[in-house]
Amino acid sequence: MTTINDIAKMANVSRTTVSRVLNNNGYVSESARERVMKVVEATGYIPSVSAKSLRTKRSGVIGVILPKISTETASRVVGGINEVVAKEGFQILLTDTELNHEKEIEYIRLLHSRHVDGIILLATNVNDRLLNTIEDANLPFISLGQELPGVTSIVYDDYHASRDMTHMIIKKGHKKIAYIGVGEDDPAVGVLRKQGFIETIQEAGLEVEESWIRYGDFSIESGYESMKQIVEASPGNLPTAVFVVTDRMAVGAMEYLKEQGLRIPQDIAITGIGASVMSKYVSPSLTTIDYFNKEAGTMAAELLLEQLQDKNTKKKFLQNYRLIERDSV
Amino acid sequence: MTTINDIAKMANVSRTTVSRVLNNNGYVSESARERVMKVVEATGYIPSVSAKSLRTKRSGVIGVILPKISTETASRVVGGINEVVAKEGFQILLTDTELNHEKEIEYIRLLHSRHVDGIILLATNVNDRLLNTIEDANLPFISLGQELPGVTSIVYDDYHASRDMTHMIIKKGHKKIAYIGVGEDDPAVGVLRKQGFIETIQEAGLEVEESWIRYGDFSIESGYESMKQIVEASPGNLPTAVFVVTDRMAVGAMEYLKEQGLRIPQDIAITGIGASVMSKYVSPSLTTIDYFNKEAGTMAAELLLEQLQDKNTKKKFLQNYRLIERDSV
Repeated sequence: MTTINDIAKMANVSRTTVSRVLNNNGYVSESARERVMKVVEATGYIPSVSAKSLRTKRSGVIGVILPKISTETASRVVGGINEVVAKEGFQILLTDTELNHEKEIEYIRLLHSRHVDGIILLATNVNDRLLNTIEDANLPFISLGQELPGVTSIVYDDYHASRDMTHMIIKKGHKKIAYIGVGEDDPAVGVLRKQGFIETIQEAGLEVEESWIRYGDFSIESGYESMKQIVEASPGNLPTAVFVVTDRMAVGAMEYLKEQGLRIPQDIAITGIGASVMSKYVSPSLTTIDYFNKEAGTMAAELLLEQLQDKNTKKKFLQNYRLIERDSV
Repeated sequence: MTTINDIAKMANVSRTTVSRVLNNNGYVSESARERVMKVVEATGYIPSVSAKSLRTKRSGVIGVILPKISTETASRVVGGINEVVAKEGFQILLTDTELNHEKEIEYIRLLHSRHVDGIILLATNVNDRLLNTIEDANLPFISLGQELPGVTSIVYDDYHASRDMTHMIIKKGHKKIAYIGVGEDDPAVGVLRKQGFIETIQEAGLEVEESWIRYGDFSIESGYESMKQIVEASPGNLPTAVFVVTDRMAVGAMEYLKEQGLRIPQDIAITGIGASVMSKYVSPSLTTIDYFNKEAGTMAAELLLEQLQDKNTKKKFLQNYRLIERDSV
């Protein structure tokens, strides 16, 4: 089997130079880099990761746990993370929990067992087993999207974003406002967004019809179904606006309204959260909240790299947002 | 440090039972499983992967290399893969090359060095270094989306899908048809889709205006720009239809046409490929080709699992497709 010493000899460079090239770490002249890569390719040499880890105490890999790879939120966050860590010579391993809480725990263990240097979790819930698993892994760790006690967390300002959106709807003259949310096991999307909505409604002296509060599962179809249930529950007394906690569910809700011949926003106004690409291209374009996901990813990566130096930075960071007013309200 | 023997003792089961539970592999009674998991959680035990690999010769992990996690194609394929491998107790590690060919090679090496049992590559190009890297890795390997010589490949039928779409456009009476494609370093999307389009046009005795052939980079913005160039190149002599090789670029092209006050399909008809969720919700809804990506993922996973038994199944598989006629033509 080819060793790093063989590569060094064949490329006529030092062992350190080979290591620098392979780890993308430290200065190497362009010509030396080329020679090394040529030999590496010719021999098909694959550095032994465990040996490398033992020497450098770093594997050069960051694990990222996503709730669902198909969401744009996830891909923008990963884009932001990658921008930061790639510059430092790190690669990324992604895992997809498909919104299964159990898999968050499994994947933390898996990534740990693959010797990643740190983990960024796009968190969807908070529970003791998750917290214990994070503690046991004892790795640099960032939670993004939920506040996890004892873990450096970057959270979106769900409560105030929802308040701002609800204010805007009320300011446009709406008094009959429906709500499409998600389950309350998701503290950020399920609890905080609802709380922001409900409290703002109540402060304005309005009431929320019980049958106008529905829950989906993040999918477009569940938005469609929730909207259908709201409309069917109130023949002759429809809401004039619907606050939806995600863009995808809002798109589903819009689809149902359009099928029913209801005009958006003239008959029913609608809002989303997330600033998805689709929100811009549906018709009418969807009023939504931009959470700057890419910047959140960048911040997560920077905090993780900081932790790689010093493990004791446990803090909570609040990510900024902006309301994008479009044509659906 | 806690060992597997400690876990076995504390849970009052055999070492084999602990191993079965942790590897999700072989029969274990529900009560034994619960006891083991309770101890595993209480102790924070994380099995040593290298030791495990040495014993079972399997790491239980499949590597998947995606060109871009933000595409729906990718997420559907991963969904299909996961459905199959999860049943067999495998986990998935994803990597995202961000359409960087160099990273395909880097990630094959990375996944190999992390001891995955096999790799599924959503391929975007064919080059010798890639083929050499695959050969060197010497792992069960599936290419999806491009035919790689010597590698089990599942390919979409790009040529015939493009022919069918072009036929349909011509049958609707269009004679002046523009083309928005991608670079020819992508054999499937760049070469075969173009070939299907051009040959069908020529067989129908039509010609393609040179200035109506434009290339984007898969992004919505590049579709917008390409459409703009086509329209600006031909004042007073616009095409009546545009064949676009991806849905995302088609959505961008539609956006430009709408901004210009051109009606779709009355002034200019437009088609995409990919059956993205967005294609259904843009307005007008986009006529497109569905490649059954999830089924392709399922097939890739099944072929990979077969290879895990017997490494000598090198074949090419052609994936089916269907044309979805909507309102944009």
